Amino acid sequence: MCAVCEVHAGNTEDLNQHANIILMFLKVKPLRLEAKKPIVILNRDDAEELDVKPMDRVEMRSGKKKEVAIVNIAEKFVPRGYVGLYSRVQKEMGAKAGERLRVTATEPPESLASIKRRLDGDRLESDEIHKIVKDVVEERLSDIEITAYVLSLYTHQMTNKEIAAMSSSMCVTGDMLNIKGKRIFDKHSIGGVPGDKTSMLLVPTVAAAGLTIPKTSSRAITAPAGTADRMECLCPVDLGLDEIKAVVDQIGCCLVWGGAVDLAPADDAFIRVEYPLSIDPLLLPSVMSKKKAVGANYVVIDIPTGRGVKVKTVSDAEDLANKFIELGKHLKIKVSCVSTFGEQPIGRGIGPALEAREVLKSVMHPKSAPQDLVEKVGKLSGELFEFAGKRNAAALGVEILKSGKTEKKLREIISAQGGDPEIKPGDIEVGPKRAIIKSTKPGKVWWIDNKRVTETARIAGAPKDRGAGLLFHKKLGDTVKRGDVLFEIYAEKPAKLRHAVKAAEHNCIMGVAKKFSMVMAEIPEEKEQENYFILER
Amino acid sequence: MCAVCEVHAGNTEDLNQHANIILMFLKVKPLRLEAKKPIVILNRDDAEELDVKPMDRVEMRSGKKKEVAIVNIAEKFVPRGYVGLYSRVQKEMGAKAGERLRVTATEPPESLASIKRRLDGDRLESDEIHKIVKDVVEERLSDIEITAYVLSLYTHQMTNKEIAAMSSSMCVTGDMLNIKGKRIFDKHSIGGVPGDKTSMLLVPTVAAAGLTIPKTSSRAITAPAGTADRMECLCPVDLGLDEIKAVVDQIGCCLVWGGAVDLAPADDAFIRVEYPLSIDPLLLPSVMSKKKAVGANYVVIDIPTGRGVKVKTVSDAEDLANKFIELGKHLKIKVSCVSTFGEQPIGRGIGPALEAREVLKSVMHPKSAPQDLVEKVGKLSGELFEFAGKRNAAALGVEILKSGKTEKKLREIISAQGGDPEIKPGDIEVGPKRAIIKSTKPGKVWWIDNKRVTETARIAGAPKDRGAGLLFHKKLGDTVKRGDVLFEIYAEKPAKLRHAVKAAEHNCIMGVAKKFSMVMAEIPEEKEQENYFILER
Repeated sequence: MCAVCEVHAGNTEDLNQHANIILMFLKVKPLRLEAKKPIVILNRDDAEELDVKPMDRVEMRSGKKKEVAIVNIAEKFVPRGYVGLYSRVQKEMGAKAGERLRVTATEPPESLASIKRRLDGDRLESDEIHKIVKDVVEERLSDIEITAYVLSLYTHQMTNKEIAAMSSSMCVTGDMLNIKGKRIFDKHSIGGVPGDKTSMLLVPTVAAAGLTIPKTSSRAITAPAGTADRMECLCPVDLGLDEIKAVVDQIGCCLVWGGAVDLAPADDAFIRVEYPLSIDPLLLPSVMSKKKAVGANYVVIDIPTGRGVKVKTVSDAEDLANKFIELGKHLKIKVSCVSTFGEQPIGRGIGPALEAREVLKSVMHPKSAPQDLVEKVGKLSGELFEFAGKRNAAALGVEILKSGKTEKKLREIISAQGGDPEIKPGDIEVGPKRAIIKSTKPGKVWWIDNKRVTETARIAGAPKDRGAGLLFHKKLGDTVKRGDVLFEIYAEKPAKLRHAVKAAEHNCIMGVAKKFSMVMAEIPEEKEQENYFILER
Repeated sequence: MCAVCEVHAGNTEDLNQHANIILMFLKVKPLRLEAKKPIVILNRDDAEELDVKPMDRVEMRSGKKKEVAIVNIAEKFVPRGYVGLYSRVQKEMGAKAGERLRVTATEPPESLASIKRRLDGDRLESDEIHKIVKDVVEERLSDIEITAYVLSLYTHQMTNKEIAAMSSSMCVTGDMLNIKGKRIFDKHSIGGVPGDKTSMLLVPTVAAAGLTIPKTSSRAITAPAGTADRMECLCPVDLGLDEIKAVVDQIGCCLVWGGAVDLAPADDAFIRVEYPLSIDPLLLPSVMSKKKAVGANYVVIDIPTGRGVKVKTVSDAEDLANKFIELGKHLKIKVSCVSTFGEQPIGRGIGPALEAREVLKSVMHPKSAPQDLVEKVGKLSGELFEFAGKRNAAALGVEILKSGKTEKKLREIISAQGGDPEIKPGDIEVGPKRAIIKSTKPGKVWWIDNKRVTETARIAGAPKDRGAGLLFHKKLGDTVKRGDVLFEIYAEKPAKLRHAVKAAEHNCIMGVAKKFSMVMAEIPEEKEQENYFILER
C-alpha cells in the first residue's frame, strides 16, 4: 500500500478483489491447425482490450485447466469474442468449440529476460540456460525469441561453462538411455564427407571386441545419406527407448535413428533457426548432449578435414578437438579426436542403398574393401580400444574386420533390430535408372569436389530415394584412360537422373589431368558466391 | 559442359531439357488462413521429394502466374499431393481448390546472403540494404531472417552510411506525400513522457504563422495515448494520401494518423521483432524515413530527457541529437533537437479524451494553460520559426497561442479532417467511472514516476478506452496538504477502474514529503527487475 495516497473511488464496486488484471471471457474457435508452439489467435479489438500485442502471452483458464499461449492477431479470421485455438492448445485445454475461456494477459517466461541479457553479451548462469532450454523444448518461446538466443550465442561466443551447461540442459530435457553396469563407448563424426559409412563397420567391430556401443545416428539434413538412412536399407532403425535397451542388453550395440527417441530434443528447435541462417554455434553442445544422453563414458570424434568440409585445416581441427576434450571433462566423458582426410568421398558408393551395399560387401570381403574405409574404421576403433585398455588397440579393429567377426556382429544387429540377418548385397535395391560418366581424356584424378558430389547425389534423389546416388570407379590419385568410367549416377526416377546428369555435366565433380596444374578452374563470368553449408551433426 | 566427362545415360530420356530442378504437380488446398507472408504448407513426404525443408522456398506456377512462398511442413494437415495455400498466396495465384500447381524448390532471396554477412559484422552497401528493406516490405523474408537482420544491426551498430541508406530505403519502399512548391516543416518526439500533447498545439501554431506542416502521428504502442489517439477525440485521423494532400493544400497543415497511409511500411515489420526483444536499433531510420516520406525540409526533434524515459541524461541527448543532425544532412533535411525535461507528465491529463480536452481548453484559454505545455510549444515551434527565418522566432509561438490564432487553426484542422469545428471541451466524453487519490500527509511533490503513470493509465483502459486515464491535480514542486487530491483515475469500465486503483495503491505514482529525502524507496523483498521499454516513435 502506498504510504502517501488515500483512495476515494466514486462509482466503483468492491476494490479488494483480484490483482491488476484485465480479463475477458472468449469463446473457443478451433482452428484445426498444427503448430508445435502454443499459439492462439485473437481478434484485434479483443487484443487491444486485453492490452496484448502480437508475440505477447495470454493465460487461458477453463475449470482447473490452465495454458499459456503466444498471441497472434487477426482482423476477420477470428471474430470478436472468440479465441482461435491451434490444435495443440485446444487438445491440452480439452476445450470444445464455443466453450468460454477466461483469458488474461500474462508475462513472458523468465527465460526471455535471460535471452535479452545474453544478447547484450552477458554470460548466463547454468540455471538460466536450463530455463531457456526447457522453455525451448516445451515450445514456450517464439521463433523471434529462439532466433535471438541462437544469434546471441553466435555473436558472443559461449564460455566453456556455458557450453557445458547447454550440453547438460539439452541432455536432461530429453530422454536418457540408461544402461546399467557397463562402460559405454560411442563415436561421432563432424560430417561433411559424402559416403562416410564408417559407423556401420566401426560399431560391430567395437562390439565384437566386447565393448558396449549404443550408437544413435541422424538422417541426412543436407547430405546424400545419414547413417540412419544407410542402415535402414538393412533393417528397421526407428526403435523406441525400450527397444534400444533390449537390443543393447542382448548384443552390446545398436545402429538406430536418434530421431525416433527424444534425445536432446532442443536441438531440433535450434536447427530450425540455424539452418536458414547457415550458422552452427551449437555444434559442441549438440553433439555432446546426445552422447551424454546415451550415457557415454568414452567417445571418439572424427573430424574430417579439408576443402569442402566444415573444418578446413589440421590446426582448426586441433582447436575444435581441444574444445571437445575440454567439454568432455565437464561432462565426465573421455574424448579422443581424430582429424581425417576429408577431400574425397569415403569408399565408392554415395546414397543410402549404394552405401549399405558397400558396407555389406566390405564386411563379407574385407580384403577387397575400400582401403580408406578400412583405415578409418581401424584408427577410430583403435581410439576406443585404447580407452578400454585393450592390448594391440591400434591394430585390433582391422584384425576383427578381417576375421569376419565384424560381419557376424553386423548381422546380429540387423537381426536384433528386426531385419533379415541373411541379407546379401544383391538384395539391396539400387536405383534402376543409371548414367555412366566417362573421361574424355587420359590422366590422373587430382581432385574430387565433395560439394558437387553431394549436390548431384541429392538431385538424383538421395536420400529420399534410397536407391539414388553415385558410384565412383575412380578416386584421388587413380590413373584414368580416355573412355574410362569415372563414376555412375543412379536414380529411381528418369527425370531425377536427367537432372543429376545435367548437374554433373555443368559442374565438374572431379578433375582429371595429365599433370598437376596450378589452374584449378577458369571462371568465365561473375557468379553469385554459393554458400556451402553443412548442417550434419 | 565439363571438359573431362562424357555422359552415357542408360535407361534415360532426352537429357537436354530443363535445368537441374525437381518439380512436382500439387493440388491446391486452400487453408483460408490470414498471414502477411506468402506461406505454403507441404506434406512432409512431398517436401522430402522436392528436397525442401521448413523455411526453404518453393516457386509455384500456374499458367503465367508465378509466386514464391516460404515452406512450412505438416504431417497430416495437408495430405500428400497437395499444397496448402494461405489466403494471400491463393489470392495472388488466383488458384482454385483442387487446381494443380507446378511446384519447384527455389533459392532464397539474395537479400538473405546480405543478412548473413551483416550478422558477421560486414557493413552493407546501400543497394544491399535496399534489397533487404524491399524484401521485408514485400514479405519475402521469414521471421527468423528479419530477426537476424534486426539483431545484426543491434549487435554491430550501423554506420552513418547504413543509417542513411536504411532511412532512404524505408522511405522509398512506401508511399510519399508530395506537396509541391512549399518548404515542409515537421516535428517529432522521441517519446516516453505520458500526456505529451505538444504536437496538437504546435502544429496549428506553426501553421498559423504560414508554415506548411503535414504532421503524421502514431497511435500508442506502449504509451497511454499517441497523438493520433488524442486527435481522434476531436475529428477523424485516418485520412488517405489524397485526403491529406487536399487538407494540407487547403489549410497548410494536418494532424493525422500515419498508419492509414503506407509511409515507411518496413517499420511495422521491424517493430514486430523489436517489441518482444525490447530493442530499438532502428530508432533513427524509423523516425527520419517517415519525415523524408512527407517531404520534410526542416524538422525539430524533441528529446525528453530524464529518469524513466529513453534518454536519461543531457549528454546522452546531445549524442542522439548529433546523430539526427548528421543523418539529416545525408537526407537533405535540416534538423534541430531540443532536450526537454522528461521526469513528469506534460500538463495534467493522461489518456486520449482527457488530453484532447486539455488541448482544447489550452488553446481556448491560453492564459490558464499548463505552463510546461506552453513552454514546450513555444520552444519547439521557435526552432521551426528560426529555420523559416521568422523574426522574433523564440517568442512567436507563445504569441500566436495567446492571440487565439492557434485555436482558430486547430478548429480549421478539425473541420478539414471532417470533425465538428465548434466542439467544446465538455463535448469530449471522459470515463464515467472515477477514483480520487488523496494525500495522506502534507508536504511537497518531489517526484512522479512516469512508468507507473503509464502503467496505471493503461490498466484503466487507455488508449483503447478513449475516456480512460489519469488527471493530475498536483505536479512536481506543488505544495500538498493532507487530504488534497493528488490525481484522479478515469475509466469506462468498473473492473478496469478497480484494477487501476489497485495498481496505484501498490505502486506509488508520486512522492510527497515535507523535506527532500535521500531515501527514495524502501525495497522490502527481492523483486524481479522490471524491464521498462518504450517503443514509441
